[in-house]
Amino acid sequence: MPRSETRKIINDPVYGFITLDHPLLLQIIAHPYYQRLRRIHQMAFASMVYPGAVHTRLLHSLGAYHLMCNALNELKGKSVEITAEEELSVKIAILLHDIGHGPFSHALEYRLVKEVGHESISLLIMQKLNKEFGGLLEIAIRIFTNKYPKQFLHQLVSGQLDVDRMDYLTRDSFFTGVSEGVIGYDRIIKMLTVHHGQLMVEEKAIYSIEKFLVSRRLMYWQVYLHKTVLSAEKMLVRIIERARELIAKGADLHSGSGPFDFFLKHPPGRDEIEKHLDKFCLLDDYDLTSAIKNWVFHPDPVLSNLCRFVTCRQLLKVRMQATPFAEGLVKEYKDRVAEQLGLGDHETNYFVFTGEAMNTTYNPSDERIQILFRDGHVKDISEVDNALIHQTLAAPVKNFYICYMR
Amino acid sequence: MPRSETRKIINDPVYGFITLDHPLLLQIIAHPYYQRLRRIHQMAFASMVYPGAVHTRLLHSLGAYHLMCNALNELKGKSVEITAEEELSVKIAILLHDIGHGPFSHALEYRLVKEVGHESISLLIMQKLNKEFGGLLEIAIRIFTNKYPKQFLHQLVSGQLDVDRMDYLTRDSFFTGVSEGVIGYDRIIKMLTVHHGQLMVEEKAIYSIEKFLVSRRLMYWQVYLHKTVLSAEKMLVRIIERARELIAKGADLHSGSGPFDFFLKHPPGRDEIEKHLDKFCLLDDYDLTSAIKNWVFHPDPVLSNLCRFVTCRQLLKVRMQATPFAEGLVKEYKDRVAEQLGLGDHETNYFVFTGEAMNTTYNPSDERIQILFRDGHVKDISEVDNALIHQTLAAPVKNFYICYMR
Amino acid sequence: MPRSETRKIINDPVYGFITLDHPLLLQIIAHPYYQRLRRIHQMAFASMVYPGAVHTRLLHSLGAYHLMCNALNELKGKSVEITAEEELSVKIAILLHDIGHGPFSHALEYRLVKEVGHESISLLIMQKLNKEFGGLLEIAIRIFTNKYPKQFLHQLVSGQLDVDRMDYLTRDSFFTGVSEGVIGYDRIIKMLTVHHGQLMVEEKAIYSIEKFLVSRRLMYWQVYLHKTVLSAEKMLVRIIERARELIAKGADLHSGSGPFDFFLKHPPGRDEIEKHLDKFCLLDDYDLTSAIKNWVFHPDPVLSNLCRFVTCRQLLKVRMQATPFAEGLVKEYKDRVAEQLGLGDHETNYFVFTGEAMNTTYNPSDERIQILFRDGHVKDISEVDNALIHQTLAAPVKNFYICYMR
Amino acid sequence: MPRSETRKIINDPVYGFITLDHPLLLQIIAHPYYQRLRRIHQMAFASMVYPGAVHTRLLHSLGAYHLMCNALNELKGKSVEITAEEELSVKIAILLHDIGHGPFSHALEYRLVKEVGHESISLLIMQKLNKEFGGLLEIAIRIFTNKYPKQFLHQLVSGQLDVDRMDYLTRDSFFTGVSEGVIGYDRIIKMLTVHHGQLMVEEKAIYSIEKFLVSRRLMYWQVYLHKTVLSAEKMLVRIIERARELIAKGADLHSGSGPFDFFLKHPPGRDEIEKHLDKFCLLDDYDLTSAIKNWVFHPDPVLSNLCRFVTCRQLLKVRMQATPFAEGLVKEYKDRVAEQLGLGDHETNYFVFTGEAMNTTYNPSDERIQILFRDGHVKDISEVDNALIHQTLAAPVKNFYICYMR
Repeated sequence: MPRSETRKIINDPVYGFITLDHPLLLQIIAHPYYQRLRRIHQMAFASMVYPGAVHTRLLHSLGAYHLMCNALNELKGKSVEITAEEELSVKIAILLHDIGHGPFSHALEYRLVKEVGHESISLLIMQKLNKEFGGLLEIAIRIFTNKYPKQFLHQLVSGQLDVDRMDYLTRDSFFTGVSEGVIGYDRIIKMLTVHHGQLMVEEKAIYSIEKFLVSRRLMYWQVYLHKTVLSAEKMLVRIIERARELIAKGADLHSGSGPFDFFLKHPPGRDEIEKHLDKFCLLDDYDLTSAIKNWVFHPDPVLSNLCRFVTCRQLLKVRMQATPFAEGLVKEYKDRVAEQLGLGDHETNYFVFTGEAMNTTYNPSDERIQILFRDGHVKDISEVDNALIHQTLAAPVKNFYICYMR
Repeated sequence: MPRSETRKIINDPVYGFITLDHPLLLQIIAHPYYQRLRRIHQMAFASMVYPGAVHTRLLHSLGAYHLMCNALNELKGKSVEITAEEELSVKIAILLHDIGHGPFSHALEYRLVKEVGHESISLLIMQKLNKEFGGLLEIAIRIFTNKYPKQFLHQLVSGQLDVDRMDYLTRDSFFTGVSEGVIGYDRIIKMLTVHHGQLMVEEKAIYSIEKFLVSRRLMYWQVYLHKTVLSAEKMLVRIIERARELIAKGADLHSGSGPFDFFLKHPPGRDEIEKHLDKFCLLDDYDLTSAIKNWVFHPDPVLSNLCRFVTCRQLLKVRMQATPFAEGLVKEYKDRVAEQLGLGDHETNYFVFTGEAMNTTYNPSDERIQILFRDGHVKDISEVDNALIHQTLAAPVKNFYICYMR
Repeated sequence: MPRSETRKIINDPVYGFITLDHPLLLQIIAHPYYQRLRRIHQMAFASMVYPGAVHTRLLHSLGAYHLMCNALNELKGKSVEITAEEELSVKIAILLHDIGHGPFSHALEYRLVKEVGHESISLLIMQKLNKEFGGLLEIAIRIFTNKYPKQFLHQLVSGQLDVDRMDYLTRDSFFTGVSEGVIGYDRIIKMLTVHHGQLMVEEKAIYSIEKFLVSRRLMYWQVYLHKTVLSAEKMLVRIIERARELIAKGADLHSGSGPFDFFLKHPPGRDEIEKHLDKFCLLDDYDLTSAIKNWVFHPDPVLSNLCRFVTCRQLLKVRMQATPFAEGLVKEYKDRVAEQLGLGDHETNYFVFTGEAMNTTYNPSDERIQILFRDGHVKDISEVDNALIHQTLAAPVKNFYICYMR
Repeated sequence: MPRSETRKIINDPVYGFITLDHPLLLQIIAHPYYQRLRRIHQMAFASMVYPGAVHTRLLHSLGAYHLMCNALNELKGKSVEITAEEELSVKIAILLHDIGHGPFSHALEYRLVKEVGHESISLLIMQKLNKEFGGLLEIAIRIFTNKYPKQFLHQLVSGQLDVDRMDYLTRDSFFTGVSEGVIGYDRIIKMLTVHHGQLMVEEKAIYSIEKFLVSRRLMYWQVYLHKTVLSAEKMLVRIIERARELIAKGADLHSGSGPFDFFLKHPPGRDEIEKHLDKFCLLDDYDLTSAIKNWVFHPDPVLSNLCRFVTCRQLLKVRMQATPFAEGLVKEYKDRVAEQLGLGDHETNYFVFTGEAMNTTYNPSDERIQILFRDGHVKDISEVDNALIHQTLAAPVKNFYICYMR
């Protein structure tokens, strides 16, 4: 990242070069809050299955920013009015849209901080930065929270065809090596348009949008909800639960990281998170992974075994099916683990458990990707002639899983 | 990584699919020693400049293994005799060639363990695994140590055109996004041949080899020895030195990681490393990064500042030039830092220091990439007609650098 | 294409290197019949819209051959029994599967030769080559005509998941630059299997197959049936019709190519084609393109205008819609062209005409892509749980088009 | 190429999308002179060895135009003053820089038209178009002929680091599949700058420039001067020579193309070319290839054999070496061919001949790629410290070849 005062060019394996060309953008990415994203993997434990998928939230944010620049250029080329201030603000909004993610992103959302999702934390951090930067993030915040009149700006940051999704699908398929997840982001961006203040795509993009939704469907089932990835992420949750259980019992448990110890013992809720925001911004994947490595040697057999399994990638086995698993089977697995590890009934719940994984291909009632036809009329992608994306794909597909020891 | 008993296919963003098709190979990659490589970045702090370059030693090992499979297929197709046992063994040797790397790889080599390089540690670990696997790694070890009669097998693992270099140049240029580092690995592999027991390349590969050496030259100066990368890596070394200095003074210093504490306090030498091999195999990038994050809050201003600078990417500035830096300049920088941070003269050495970065484009006297001509004669790449790679490139290029605070 | 006696390596921009490793394969591709495919574009007039799409049938055949090699290796790795003779034969069958294509491939099928499609001509040419090569193509011909007991070999050449389709979708999307047409051919091939003698795919490939069908759908509407491509191809047909009309009227019309003159005057039918096979094998895109260039200067205004329009890419305009065009509109366009070019009513039919373009996303009743589940049962891709590919996509989508002068 | 009045987006497999956004640019590419470039292969007979390399001069021109747009944006971003009129003009200049190429480009330069190279013909055509477009190409012509004050604009079109070279190296390596020819065009463009009115590159681009020159060196010897390509191109020249010899002897020889017949019989020289410019613009690869196909059946054994060999890719064999071939060897080959084909001594010269192929890696005295250092001083790439590109590479490498029949 060669540095000059007002311009920085960053190499990106996906898009080639990313250019940051405003001092405020450079100050934002230099901020410790932003630099923290270097230490949070974009895809949590997906690298257990796809070892190339170790890219970071920092790179994803930069990538989404890059697509935003492209999208803005296209829209301006189509005479959509966007002021310099709006342009800078929407770029800031996308750079910071994921700033509130904690360690292991979605896998631990609502676990270290209660009740509050990463988007709310992003907003809190943006507000804090806004103070630091003397109010320069005001409009970015209004765009982020959809309180800015030009709604399409918000939709570019967070909507059905936002640059966030376009980047993560593109980037995740790139780094996993799942080439089939590739979407035609450049074509979709070329086809973006604004109609009655709303972001839409031109008629010619119909097949690209279909492809985009099918790629997303594929990535969900083949990558994000892959059985092994699911197993590792659920084990991580169990590790935290066990640690808290031990703490509650008065055990002497240290993770090796002060901030993580704090969030283990006192997970803040909605009212407290703002107070502990600085501490939250010290947390990243490294605190948790190091803790797990340390706890391999903890005397508690539940905690140490779970931690050892994750560290050595000896993950719980997973089966998935369309119907719930029979209680008998669950019991059978529990009995087996009780015997193997010499555990009591309660403890076996850490090694045998069931749950649901769910995904929807496209739900027209809340997604609404709108196609603008040449004659000016607008249709949802699910309503065009001979639609591939149809009503029966609107229902979420629910799969039941069971994790158990071999 | 879908699992079956004898065959595993792994997605790789660089090569597409990597196939492991022998139970012993699967057992080796499942071993905790091997899984540790998931937590060691291939390129240490290169991601400070090239944020995509966060790939791991595990993926590099698998990639080198993949190229080995291709190379073996080519050579067998050219009637070079290779038995099934040799094939398996040379694949094992390449899978394990980097198993002895510690945290931050080359950046910390000889720092946590004294006098012993990563290759020696790789050998120790291979010997240990050999015992565990009942002697099945015997030939792999002989190949690795160049004690096996068919020398070309060793040369494939570790030589001027080994699959290790081909993978790391290919992979590092892929993940950094420095597309110019790309080499024609597939073409070079197609042109490999064995002549009098030695690995050579056919005449038609001359331009590909030139390209390979020029790419390596480019990657060194543009990536591996990039000023910012250098700065971060030298700061890491300073952090460890300061920590040891504080320990020597009797300070109460904990890294948060037991194994790292051990290696900080008692860096083993040649005679002791074998005894502490198990402990060494618990160390990875996470121990060090977490320690650095913890020490941001340490009372010692030298340690905490260095750690904060690395964590927030506020790195020391670097200048490079062909001649040593004047002592006056060094003093000037030190005076400035003494004032800024309120430090004594000795302490300023942690923030202002000089050194040398060196690289050789091609040294015919010890590299010897041999070209086999159609008529059977052999020439070094630097001796072919109209050679691009010539004598004057044999001398190492030495650059002097100075690190200092802005 | 470096030549040796038994092995040839060919650079391919899509797959890297293609290896031919049997003398018979080398003899076949060196044959003038095969070399003719250098002069037939894979995608006829698609380059009018996608200027990169000028790749040849020769390269497509080599590409399909390459995928066949990969597929055979996978199947053999899964213990499907395939003899060396069968392997060579199925490779020959795929190399020659398109040998019967004439100039502009599908665009002129049934136009220069009546009643006989390109596959029948491929068979005739294979039989002829079989005689030349002393019967060595016997099994290849039986596989090609599905008369060989191991049906899966035929299905690899010509079936729902044959390597022909995989290559042309991959290659056409590569050369057009329509990146969204990309399919996961390598993954599909890794998932191929044989069950009860039939080619199937493993359960894990479901999403890849969906993606394959959606890519095909996209390529049809976005590329193969693109309005401008359609216009150029229909104009080509009109040119030939006009030339024949002029000949029938006794005009002195020469194309500049003897073989093309012959097929213009005497298009052979089913009974005659074998007799004129040698002449057919002299025809390629160059004869027709040169003829069109020559006829730009022909005194007949219909012929010369059509030829000029194609040569200068001033193509007839096209509109497409889901319902037939009103006769009034057609008449209006014809009147306009009659006036502009000073033509009689009959002649205007060459510049204004309607037709239908049709494509089916997936028709389970005749396509039948079969998924083999782990428990051994088999389902069509349209019948799996939560199928994306469903009954309503089985009906062909029919679009009506009108071509007219601006 | 979806059409609208002022904006056209073209898919390019190399760069993704190319945007033309000015009516004049659209009018120029729609002109028959420009459309002719669809029918001229960029790489003449390179596809004999690299079957993917069938891309056209039209696509190369569009590609160079695309890089020009990027370069202009970079320079404007660095505050280099470029007016809208200059921008449009330099884009026109690059779009038309190759408009004067005839059939088979360089392979037949100075053969169909005497004494006049393709650049002079490009200029004549630009002047003609300038009249058609009412003088709108005035500045483009001044830039093209280096008569415009801002020299760097000319240097972008035609200089050591012009976008023409960057595109053809990038594109030719893409379509041949010779991945090693890839250059970092995007990085070089990002490093372009203007100093004292001259185009230069920033210091940081040194390694990229080295790589660029080494890639060019590789492409020359591995592709452009490949023995088989050379053979085909020299045979083409012989075919034209023989045809002229036969005409001179009064033979009745027709190519099937009126314009080609004309240029065969009356190759215009410097004084006549302007008069025949319209006829020249009717010529393309199709005229020649069709002629060659026709002449396979010509009664003259020299002409028919040469034409058959080219059509069926049974090319003359080539040997290359650093010294001239002995006369005895030439005689031996000629005697053999005289016997094989029953030819007289003079005729054997068409099947056995020698010549020289030459290329220079970098000649500092006439190339002068200038590096601008941070401190403002300027050095030629061959003069920087530890230069890879050095004096001994300035001398052209000359190889002697002999073509002969097997």
